[in-house]
Amino acid sequence: MNSPTDSVSEPYSGAFAGAEHRFALRVYFEDTDLSGIVYHANYLRFMERARSDMLRCAGIDQRAAMDGGTGYYAVHDLRITYRRPAKLEDPLLVRSRVVAVRAAACEIAQDIWRGDTLLTEGRVTAAFLGMDGRPKRQPGEWRETFERLAARSD
Amino acid sequence: MNSPTDSVSEPYSGAFAGAEHRFALRVYFEDTDLSGIVYHANYLRFMERARSDMLRCAGIDQRAAMDGGTGYYAVHDLRITYRRPAKLEDPLLVRSRVVAVRAAACEIAQDIWRGDTLLTEGRVTAAFLGMDGRPKRQPGEWRETFERLAARSD
Amino acid sequence: MNSPTDSVSEPYSGAFAGAEHRFALRVYFEDTDLSGIVYHANYLRFMERARSDMLRCAGIDQRAAMDGGTGYYAVHDLRITYRRPAKLEDPLLVRSRVVAVRAAACEIAQDIWRGDTLLTEGRVTAAFLGMDGRPKRQPGEWRETFERLAARSD
Amino acid sequence: MNSPTDSVSEPYSGAFAGAEHRFALRVYFEDTDLSGIVYHANYLRFMERARSDMLRCAGIDQRAAMDGGTGYYAVHDLRITYRRPAKLEDPLLVRSRVVAVRAAACEIAQDIWRGDTLLTEGRVTAAFLGMDGRPKRQPGEWRETFERLAARSD
Repeated sequence: MNSPTDSVSEPYSGAFAGAEHRFALRVYFEDTDLSGIVYHANYLRFMERARSDMLRCAGIDQRAAMDGGTGYYAVHDLRITYRRPAKLEDPLLVRSRVVAVRAAACEIAQDIWRGDTLLTEGRVTAAFLGMDGRPKRQPGEWRETFERLAARSD
Repeated sequence: MNSPTDSVSEPYSGAFAGAEHRFALRVYFEDTDLSGIVYHANYLRFMERARSDMLRCAGIDQRAAMDGGTGYYAVHDLRITYRRPAKLEDPLLVRSRVVAVRAAACEIAQDIWRGDTLLTEGRVTAAFLGMDGRPKRQPGEWRETFERLAARSD
Repeated sequence: MNSPTDSVSEPYSGAFAGAEHRFALRVYFEDTDLSGIVYHANYLRFMERARSDMLRCAGIDQRAAMDGGTGYYAVHDLRITYRRPAKLEDPLLVRSRVVAVRAAACEIAQDIWRGDTLLTEGRVTAAFLGMDGRPKRQPGEWRETFERLAARSD
Repeated sequence: MNSPTDSVSEPYSGAFAGAEHRFALRVYFEDTDLSGIVYHANYLRFMERARSDMLRCAGIDQRAAMDGGTGYYAVHDLRITYRRPAKLEDPLLVRSRVVAVRAAACEIAQDIWRGDTLLTEGRVTAAFLGMDGRPKRQPGEWRETFERLAARSD
C-alpha cells in the first residue's frame, strides 16, 4: 500500500506542454455501460473536465467569472470520432489544443489517448455567453491568452 | 391531481410518423448544470434513448441480441450543433431519421425540439459490433428494416 | 411498427393512485455499467425524476419557484437498499409516498419495482432551501398539500 | 502556466494514511445542477471512485477479477447525509474507512470534506457478487486485507 503524501490530498491538475494541454484521468464504473466499455457520451465529460482544467492552467477563473456576472463558455458544436474503446481502470490522457480564436468563441481540438493508442478524436467550438445565455465577446485578456496558445499550435 | 390510469404504470414509448421516429422526454434536475440549462453531454443521452426506442419500435430487440451474442450498436462518430438551450421541466421531442445504411453501420439524423423551436441538430453513425467489440455486418433483417426507413426519408 | 399518436409527442407524466405516486420509466444504456446492470447511483436519478413528477402532479411548479426566488427542494439525507438488479430495457415503476411533513422538510418513501419484484427500497428527506441555499419554511400551501398526502398514507 | 511534468500524464491515485483512505477530486460542470451546487446523486459517484481507488491501493485488481470470472463488489445498501453543498471547482477529499467485514460484504464509512468543512457523511455496504450476480464469499486474501484495515480503525 502507498504511503500518504501531501499531494494525495490535492485534486489532480493537468498542465501545458507547449501549446498542448494534458489532462489524465482513470476510467471508473460510472463511466462504463453494459457493453463493458466507456459509454460514448462520457467522453464528452472527460473533454469538458480537460477544457475546464485548461482554463485554470491558463489563469482563467470560470467560477469567479460566473459569480461576478461576466459569463461562461458553453459548447456550440462538437464532432467526435470513436476509434478504440476504453475500459474500466484504463489510464487516459486528454490532449487539447486551441486551434482558432474568434471574438466570441474558441475552437479546440481534443484527442483522448491510452498510452500510444488514439481512442477518440474530437473538435469543439466553445462560445462565450453572458449570464443571460446570449453570445458575448470574450474578455480581452482571455482572448489574448487563447491567441497565444493558438499561435503556439501552428 | 391526475387520476391513476393503467397507462401510467407503463414506461413511455415513442413511435414512427412515416420515416420519422418521435421520442418525447422532460428535462429533470439531473440533466442541468449550474449555468441553469441542460449540460451539453446530456443531449447525447437523450439521443441514445431515442435511438434505442427507435430500434424497439422497428422490432429490434437489442437486449436479446446482446444476451444471445449477436452484437450491439455503438456510436462511431457524432456531430451536434447546439442552437438554443433547454431548461428544467421543458418538454422535448427527439426526431430521428435513418439517412444512410451500410453493411455494418447506419447513419441517423437526430434533432431535438421544444415545440416549434429547434434546440439541437445532430448526426450519428452507429456501427454494429460483435460481442468482441469488432465491426460486424448487421443482421440482414435489421438492415432491410433500416433500408425501408431510409427509403421513406427520400 | 406503432402508429404516431398525439400522445407520443408529449413527455410521460406519472400520477397519484390515492396516497401513492406512480412513475414509470425504462432502463437505457446510459443507466447501466459494465457489470450489466443499473449503476447504483442511477436509482437516485430515477427517484428524483419521480419526486419532481410528484410535485408537478400535486400542482407545485418547481421551476417557477426557482425563477421567482421562492426556493427549491434539496435532498438532506437518503437511505437505499438494493434488493434485486435492473437490466437494460426493463420497465420500472417508482412508487412514492409522503410519510412525514415538517416545517422545512418532507420525508418520502420511494420503492422501485419491476412488475411484482421489489428492486430497491429508499427513504429520502427533502429540505426546502431558499435561493441562498439555507433551510426555509416550505410555502404554506405546499405544506398543506404534503400533509394531505401524508394523511392518506396512514 | 504550469510546466509539464511526467506526473501530469498519470491519473491521480489516492492513498492510505493509516486506516483511512484519502481520495481527492475537483468539482466539474458535469457534477453540478441548476441550483448551482453538486447534484446529490453525484456524491455517490465520488464515493465509488474512492472505493475503487481504495481497492487498487490495497492491491485488489477489480478488473482482473471481473475478467477472470471471480466477481465484483456491488452496493447493497447506502446511507448519506448532506450537511453542506459543494460548488464548481471546489477541491474535495473523500475519506474512507472499512468499519466491518463479513464473509460476503464490507461496510465502509465515507465522508467528503472541503478543507476542514464536512460536506457529506455516508455509510455503504458493498456485497461481493459472482458473475451471475449472486452473493458470494469474498476471496480469502481480500477479506484478510479488509480485516487488517478494519482493525486499524479501532
